[in-house]
Amino acid sequence: MSNNHGRILVLTGNGKGKSSSAFGMVMRAAGWGMRVVVVQFLKGSTWQTGEQRTARRLEEVEWHVMGNGFTWQHGDQTQDKLCAEQAWLLARDKLRDDAYHLCVLDEIHTAIELGWVDVTAVLQCITQERVPNQHLVLTGRNAPAELLALADTVTEMREVKHGFQHGLRAVRGIEF
Amino acid sequence: MSNNHGRILVLTGNGKGKSSSAFGMVMRAAGWGMRVVVVQFLKGSTWQTGEQRTARRLEEVEWHVMGNGFTWQHGDQTQDKLCAEQAWLLARDKLRDDAYHLCVLDEIHTAIELGWVDVTAVLQCITQERVPNQHLVLTGRNAPAELLALADTVTEMREVKHGFQHGLRAVRGIEF
Repeated sequence: MSNNHGRILVLTGNGKGKSSSAFGMVMRAAGWGMRVVVVQFLKGSTWQTGEQRTARRLEEVEWHVMGNGFTWQHGDQTQDKLCAEQAWLLARDKLRDDAYHLCVLDEIHTAIELGWVDVTAVLQCITQERVPNQHLVLTGRNAPAELLALADTVTEMREVKHGFQHGLRAVRGIEF
Repeated sequence: MSNNHGRILVLTGNGKGKSSSAFGMVMRAAGWGMRVVVVQFLKGSTWQTGEQRTARRLEEVEWHVMGNGFTWQHGDQTQDKLCAEQAWLLARDKLRDDAYHLCVLDEIHTAIELGWVDVTAVLQCITQERVPNQHLVLTGRNAPAELLALADTVTEMREVKHGFQHGLRAVRGIEF
């Protein structure tokens, strides 16, 4: 593997820090004038987040929220599945596009685990079609073995404890 | 513990993602117009980073690089110790200052482990002197047990693999 090839990073595990770490890398890359694209597979498009609000102020960063909210956790998932499929089609275009230096696929592992995105298609795109020097960050619990094997760097965010466990609600600036 | 109290988050472990996750929260908080202060205990002040370059464009974010480079890993550490002590004095002022909604103390665990910052002083400041609704994120390997106990949320970033292990160098936008 050449030192010039784009890095592949997998952030997984049950702890807090996967998406926020990806967004920290967005902040890093934007600081160097690198073009960044973020595709969020499961976050709701009506749910405003601080990270997205900041990204709007950074001209290097393009941000796509493809999810249908958090209904994927309960209730009818037909629409969520469609959103995830659309997210993947968009992501595939971005992976092939040399206009971008960093691509973040947020929660793609979960979309794969739910059977909404085909891991074989993802692998083929990353290994065969992707712009070779584009960096790629993939997040979500339960990363598939194929992506773990492919990645240069894998971090498991292990939950030691979480405020949610003892009744603390999610707060702005920390969880979203 | 009230739901309005500032959250305390500890990011530790040997894997990639501790500082970048903290910076993702900086991006989140800035998006909501929250005032943020970052104090870096060990990073070098002559070493430019993308996160710092982006932070300069976000008027909500104040960024202090107090370290003396990476000389703490080798050679004379007198100067590094002084920098870490200065960093703690600055951090203490920020923790007491209600102008800030989020405070990030990057690599403070390492400064404590090296004996440059006294964990008892840190604990006392956090529990007795800190603005109660200010959020606090602490990063670095080997977080001391006292901080693990105090935190609302603790994530261990566990290294499954890292590109450095197989000869890949650090790249812009990912590692810095």
